[in-house]
Amino acid sequence: MTQFIKTGSEKVFRDPVLNTIRVKDQVILELIGTSEFQRLRRIKQLGVASAVFHGAEHSRFSHSLGVYEIARQCAEHLERFYPSREPGDGLWDVSERLVLLCAALLHDVGHGPYSHTFEHIFNTDHEAYTQAIILSPSTEIHQVLVKVAPDFPEKVASVIAKTYPNPQVVQLISSQIDADRMDYLLRDAYYSGATYGQFDLSRIIHVMRPYAGGIAFDEKGSYAIEDYVVSRYQMYVQVYFHPVSRSFEVLLQHLLERAKVVYDEGQKDSRVSTAFISPTLQPLFAGNLTLQQYVMLDDSLMLANISAWRYAEDAILSDLATRFIDRKPLKSIVITDETKKLLPTIKQLIDSAGFDTRYYTAENDSFDLPYDAYNPRDKKPRTQIELMQLDGSLKELSTQSPLVEAMTGRIFGNARFFFPREMLVQHAVDDIMAPIYSDFQRYVHNETLVDPVDAGSK
Amino acid sequence: MTQFIKTGSEKVFRDPVLNTIRVKDQVILELIGTSEFQRLRRIKQLGVASAVFHGAEHSRFSHSLGVYEIARQCAEHLERFYPSREPGDGLWDVSERLVLLCAALLHDVGHGPYSHTFEHIFNTDHEAYTQAIILSPSTEIHQVLVKVAPDFPEKVASVIAKTYPNPQVVQLISSQIDADRMDYLLRDAYYSGATYGQFDLSRIIHVMRPYAGGIAFDEKGSYAIEDYVVSRYQMYVQVYFHPVSRSFEVLLQHLLERAKVVYDEGQKDSRVSTAFISPTLQPLFAGNLTLQQYVMLDDSLMLANISAWRYAEDAILSDLATRFIDRKPLKSIVITDETKKLLPTIKQLIDSAGFDTRYYTAENDSFDLPYDAYNPRDKKPRTQIELMQLDGSLKELSTQSPLVEAMTGRIFGNARFFFPREMLVQHAVDDIMAPIYSDFQRYVHNETLVDPVDAGSK
Amino acid sequence: MTQFIKTGSEKVFRDPVLNTIRVKDQVILELIGTSEFQRLRRIKQLGVASAVFHGAEHSRFSHSLGVYEIARQCAEHLERFYPSREPGDGLWDVSERLVLLCAALLHDVGHGPYSHTFEHIFNTDHEAYTQAIILSPSTEIHQVLVKVAPDFPEKVASVIAKTYPNPQVVQLISSQIDADRMDYLLRDAYYSGATYGQFDLSRIIHVMRPYAGGIAFDEKGSYAIEDYVVSRYQMYVQVYFHPVSRSFEVLLQHLLERAKVVYDEGQKDSRVSTAFISPTLQPLFAGNLTLQQYVMLDDSLMLANISAWRYAEDAILSDLATRFIDRKPLKSIVITDETKKLLPTIKQLIDSAGFDTRYYTAENDSFDLPYDAYNPRDKKPRTQIELMQLDGSLKELSTQSPLVEAMTGRIFGNARFFFPREMLVQHAVDDIMAPIYSDFQRYVHNETLVDPVDAGSK
Amino acid sequence: MTQFIKTGSEKVFRDPVLNTIRVKDQVILELIGTSEFQRLRRIKQLGVASAVFHGAEHSRFSHSLGVYEIARQCAEHLERFYPSREPGDGLWDVSERLVLLCAALLHDVGHGPYSHTFEHIFNTDHEAYTQAIILSPSTEIHQVLVKVAPDFPEKVASVIAKTYPNPQVVQLISSQIDADRMDYLLRDAYYSGATYGQFDLSRIIHVMRPYAGGIAFDEKGSYAIEDYVVSRYQMYVQVYFHPVSRSFEVLLQHLLERAKVVYDEGQKDSRVSTAFISPTLQPLFAGNLTLQQYVMLDDSLMLANISAWRYAEDAILSDLATRFIDRKPLKSIVITDETKKLLPTIKQLIDSAGFDTRYYTAENDSFDLPYDAYNPRDKKPRTQIELMQLDGSLKELSTQSPLVEAMTGRIFGNARFFFPREMLVQHAVDDIMAPIYSDFQRYVHNETLVDPVDAGSK
Repeated sequence: MTQFIKTGSEKVFRDPVLNTIRVKDQVILELIGTSEFQRLRRIKQLGVASAVFHGAEHSRFSHSLGVYEIARQCAEHLERFYPSREPGDGLWDVSERLVLLCAALLHDVGHGPYSHTFEHIFNTDHEAYTQAIILSPSTEIHQVLVKVAPDFPEKVASVIAKTYPNPQVVQLISSQIDADRMDYLLRDAYYSGATYGQFDLSRIIHVMRPYAGGIAFDEKGSYAIEDYVVSRYQMYVQVYFHPVSRSFEVLLQHLLERAKVVYDEGQKDSRVSTAFISPTLQPLFAGNLTLQQYVMLDDSLMLANISAWRYAEDAILSDLATRFIDRKPLKSIVITDETKKLLPTIKQLIDSAGFDTRYYTAENDSFDLPYDAYNPRDKKPRTQIELMQLDGSLKELSTQSPLVEAMTGRIFGNARFFFPREMLVQHAVDDIMAPIYSDFQRYVHNETLVDPVDAGSK
Repeated sequence: MTQFIKTGSEKVFRDPVLNTIRVKDQVILELIGTSEFQRLRRIKQLGVASAVFHGAEHSRFSHSLGVYEIARQCAEHLERFYPSREPGDGLWDVSERLVLLCAALLHDVGHGPYSHTFEHIFNTDHEAYTQAIILSPSTEIHQVLVKVAPDFPEKVASVIAKTYPNPQVVQLISSQIDADRMDYLLRDAYYSGATYGQFDLSRIIHVMRPYAGGIAFDEKGSYAIEDYVVSRYQMYVQVYFHPVSRSFEVLLQHLLERAKVVYDEGQKDSRVSTAFISPTLQPLFAGNLTLQQYVMLDDSLMLANISAWRYAEDAILSDLATRFIDRKPLKSIVITDETKKLLPTIKQLIDSAGFDTRYYTAENDSFDLPYDAYNPRDKKPRTQIELMQLDGSLKELSTQSPLVEAMTGRIFGNARFFFPREMLVQHAVDDIMAPIYSDFQRYVHNETLVDPVDAGSK
Repeated sequence: MTQFIKTGSEKVFRDPVLNTIRVKDQVILELIGTSEFQRLRRIKQLGVASAVFHGAEHSRFSHSLGVYEIARQCAEHLERFYPSREPGDGLWDVSERLVLLCAALLHDVGHGPYSHTFEHIFNTDHEAYTQAIILSPSTEIHQVLVKVAPDFPEKVASVIAKTYPNPQVVQLISSQIDADRMDYLLRDAYYSGATYGQFDLSRIIHVMRPYAGGIAFDEKGSYAIEDYVVSRYQMYVQVYFHPVSRSFEVLLQHLLERAKVVYDEGQKDSRVSTAFISPTLQPLFAGNLTLQQYVMLDDSLMLANISAWRYAEDAILSDLATRFIDRKPLKSIVITDETKKLLPTIKQLIDSAGFDTRYYTAENDSFDLPYDAYNPRDKKPRTQIELMQLDGSLKELSTQSPLVEAMTGRIFGNARFFFPREMLVQHAVDDIMAPIYSDFQRYVHNETLVDPVDAGSK
Repeated sequence: MTQFIKTGSEKVFRDPVLNTIRVKDQVILELIGTSEFQRLRRIKQLGVASAVFHGAEHSRFSHSLGVYEIARQCAEHLERFYPSREPGDGLWDVSERLVLLCAALLHDVGHGPYSHTFEHIFNTDHEAYTQAIILSPSTEIHQVLVKVAPDFPEKVASVIAKTYPNPQVVQLISSQIDADRMDYLLRDAYYSGATYGQFDLSRIIHVMRPYAGGIAFDEKGSYAIEDYVVSRYQMYVQVYFHPVSRSFEVLLQHLLERAKVVYDEGQKDSRVSTAFISPTLQPLFAGNLTLQQYVMLDDSLMLANISAWRYAEDAILSDLATRFIDRKPLKSIVITDETKKLLPTIKQLIDSAGFDTRYYTAENDSFDLPYDAYNPRDKKPRTQIELMQLDGSLKELSTQSPLVEAMTGRIFGNARFFFPREMLVQHAVDDIMAPIYSDFQRYVHNETLVDPVDAGSK
């Protein structure tokens, strides 16, 4: 699978982010070769964000290999320096290696095309599909896993579901500093060109220290951990929250909603054709998708459909598909709790300019907490990052890093309102909408929603 | 378009390979925004090679931006240090800037999905389409270009066709060391992870020296040029000639041939359905594709079709599509002029094992000349690389670099024979084909075709 | 000078940090060639820190070239995008280029060997020497500068002294984000291997915007600025404040103090030889150093002396020189305002173990403010970093970046107490000092000074 | 020692080239702490080349740590994948680990300041000193080694002397692709900024395969090996053979020769003072250096002396020292076997211009063979690089790589003649030597020695 060279009993894939991905377990090689895993080649890691970061075309396949490789390096480190000698000593149980590696490789296998948008519309859940693909006897992945042991698929699935009893294994896959996050931050930074996202992976792995409650980090490595937390923040504000990227998510969501509306109408009214949806995609719209049909979905199927919809009969669907494919994003402005009260007014203006505001406007919030200490009152309390002191005691990261302390518990991000770029056209002399555009533009200053009354008084 | 920031009158795209891509000409920005150019986002630069180098998912869109950026940097260098003062002084004519930049940006705009394979089967020619897209009044690209001047589309097209009168402009786009090659070598190396492909772009640009016959290089930069020639060789032998990548090209070619055969049959025999080919792809098979239909083709359309063909009625098409999509490459061995005589014998064995050798075997040659001095007797004589001496005289590169001298005129590469991986199965105890497999394997040693008689005698 | 290639009228030095350093002004080339500037090759940028970061052997010469190159790139950017059209328009006055470049190149020319330590002992001031070298008619540097214009040396000196009237020129050399800091952060990170110190120089330069009050930054570049502020913090806590590096500073300071004591004694008492100080270094100890003698001082002279002092008659000097040269650092523990009261007690123990605490112990504080907004009440108010909004208005950085806001005005760093490593020896069975060592060790826990009474009660 | 962090029982040094250097053996840590090894901090790896490549100030200390680290990674690879199971199986004997690591660390410990120049003049031999430092009971290094086993110092010394019986151990330290070369190529490239010197270290290590005769490489890694051979060539032609660097070697050699002449005269004639040579350096000139005195020599001592010699009484010594310290290199031209006959003529001109040609001119050849297959007739036959085929057989590298084949056995480099830069002064109207300079310049064209008769006829 992919380019690999064989050394001793090992196979090596060349990877631009991690340099090499090394596989010596036959089960891992076979999992990579399954059709369900190969499908991840056809699903972009960052979905629509490649419309903004043109270099970021990488797939969930390469990310999944990367998570595997980072988990493998963690296991190698723990096995070499901290192998458990007797049960309960809090060190690393070397027999956990394979379940860790399989969970790392398969943690995203249930993702569909443009998952985050997609799931809102079609009520699917990639986490449930990940579990299903691992547990269903019909999949190639299950058939490979079950050869290890009858209960092995369930073990792997439980690591991903965070119900596995060994907290070290779970934290290596899911925590505030896990193989998944470390790979996607490095990989998304590499492919987007947002070089601020770099951090020192090898040093972080090198300072991992197992303890009974999970994975801590030697306090000598606190700078590397601190740098990781900052990089995580930087990738969020620069890449994941990018306003134009969010604009394409809004467009995609609205065009799928519109396609669904037309499809539903077609189900009731035979004069409305539903043939614009290709056969493989029909079950999704019908809402009776089997697992086998689900794993046939990929980006190319979605894109080929949306491309064709540019010529759909429905005018709104056709226009939204054209904006999406030919890359004409909606524009956006920052809104605050204070200025939100102006939204009805400007939506009225957009409506007057001839745009159906259900499909041509949206509010979208992007907020994140780059790091937080454990708080049992949270809905989803986070596993805090622990630094191990010289004497073996643990101290929570933010008590040791003044920079992380400054960031802890702070929410970063913003809320934006999206609308058609036409509303910002200036000097549209021959356009009868020109007065409406001008009126609208009074509400926009420095890419922010403002009250023209206040703005005028300045 | 893509992520850019605006500084002064300039827009900046972030690019992982070149760091930034800077645009200050409105015409370039508008060209990037056309639907024909945006289509390049949906066409992979390396086609099937991403099945081998999993990181290499980058598009022709990012490559085209990159060629533009390198050409822009060249123009900036030439303008700054060597602006022409009077006609015929052999220096850089600053009025050539825009035609250079447009040609750089658009040089690949006629590429279709998996062009090289595709063109063999459907008799299309991406160079002709590039010319057509630039010259046809119906395209958005033409409409942008013609605003510059009525003859501007033709000028741009002639640079790409190498008929433009100024040899400096032509050589910056097409020569042994041009903006196109420099971008694709750097970009393909970055995304494939084949780090051997790196060279020092900024230094190469910095030593460019215009002269009446084209672009030479200051002899102080000879090491950077030498390194570029070596990198080009390295990318060929490692990436472009990779045997597994060629295997997927063979698979793709055979499956498209098979689809064409079935389609042609369906045209004659109404019992054979051609509905497996999606509506947008039908004109291609019918052989009456319009330009407007051509620019609707992209990778997603091809992939969505091939994915669906896994379930086609035709057994060969279905099997080949499955091998292609689920990544089961053909295997290959090196063949030489001497061992080619054994091919009929082993093809007979493959046939006996139940494989139609028209679709399951292939011979494929990959040879290249990393560098050559000008030779007027060649069919396509190459513009040689000239080094400018202290006294202004020119010396051809290989006379100055002993390493390039050693490589000049040497052909690198190999010929391979491709066949189903089943033929290499060992210990297939329950398989009635096992004796045939064993017989076949006598002809294979160290991934090379050998004569079992000779091999036995060793 | 150094390795350069000449392109057009330009000379290019290869630099590992900035790739190339480009010079096209004859005056800059001549300044680089002066003996005063060449002396900077023999003065390490980070002084004793190379004892901790073994890769960080780089000189003030390479740093000075780097500051020049960054200033040159800034000037090129400002000249290209924001050239002043009329006096008072707040844009960049292109006639300031040469004074900027000379000030950038020469800003550190007065540094002596191990300046920071050195100046404490010998009451020299590198800033005063920088001014003197530029202004004194006897230096080669002055002779080069004065060829530009009679008042040119004074102009250059006033930029470095921050009294030059154009605030843009001053801020490019001295502010919270200037060419000096940007070069040393990148360079020290490159050579120390502390990769956290990286930031995106080309983007920062690209978003520079001149205004009447100095240099602002386009708000689209706020992430790059934010990343720079974080990198600055990271370099401080990891490299500049490194406890072992501070330990060598303490050793160096104490050994020079001791050498001075012995020298002063020798002046009074002819039986005490001062011949251990080499002739070139004698004027420094005598306190009557001429400018010409000052510019003969360099690291090699200091090191050759200290190496020889390992065999000095004075036992303390000999021992301290051995610890310094053979790399036996003092150990250190963190102290706080609360635990400082224990210092007399543990110094008493160190004294009892036979160490003269004047030479074998030290308190050393390292604190810094990574960023601060302008505060007129500060002793040295800082020029704050301004972000230019779409409408041209300025906003102070911390109001726009939540991460910088979190760091603004916070002091980072710590205080440490240094003492002989012997005090931490354990199980020193044959050593009569063993009981004293054990007593001492009760005060140390997790590299921190603790009260044994409290510690015992835990 | 240096900056390290401790993880488990391991210490980690941060290194900019290899990222980290990991030590878990107490003996290695103690060796690093010896005064003989610490001395390497004060000896530049590239000697005078830092006058040309200003970034290349790195020491033999960092190189030695690097060779150790690469050897450690090799040992780890061999131990993990190819541990010997029984004597004579040709696999890696894991008990060789420590002797390998010590030899790697200590292989350069006998180097003196500017060794290559130095040894010519003073008849010292760094290889003999390396042996002496390891074997002499008086050194700290010996005392550490002998704690391992009484015969351990001799084992380590024999690996470095290539007389150790296990060819795998010897080849890892000394062969055409060994830890020493791999470190210095990468390190010198990193510090000089000559990025062409990069190659893929981790891949090369990963394809190492032990066999009875030494270390071979898996044929799947042939591209990485090929790239290494090219990088080696590139570093030679660009860095190690750099004409200005060779010019400083010539200057250094001549000034040391002159100092020796003056010293020898002073021994005979008491009116000639030898006090210009500092006490620590006297034994070197006297030719009766003890081992203990030898290990006190370092760059700072040499530089401090040469700096002072700028003011020496002897006019030639003073002038040469000034040219060396203040960086005024000799100029050079390429000479060939054919043009060498002109040297007496131009030396006569140089003599007429007032320069003593013994000290102001030199011929200097720099030639190298980047790779060669084994040739038993060579004076020093090289261990050729072997590629291991799928079936375990070995093939010599140049039979597999057409690029290496093209380079094999070819000698690269050139011969140059060095002379005072004054000879190239043009338009020296007030200089009575001007006619001589003009005459001389007729022999120089494109930095090459030419016959004016031929040149004139062109």
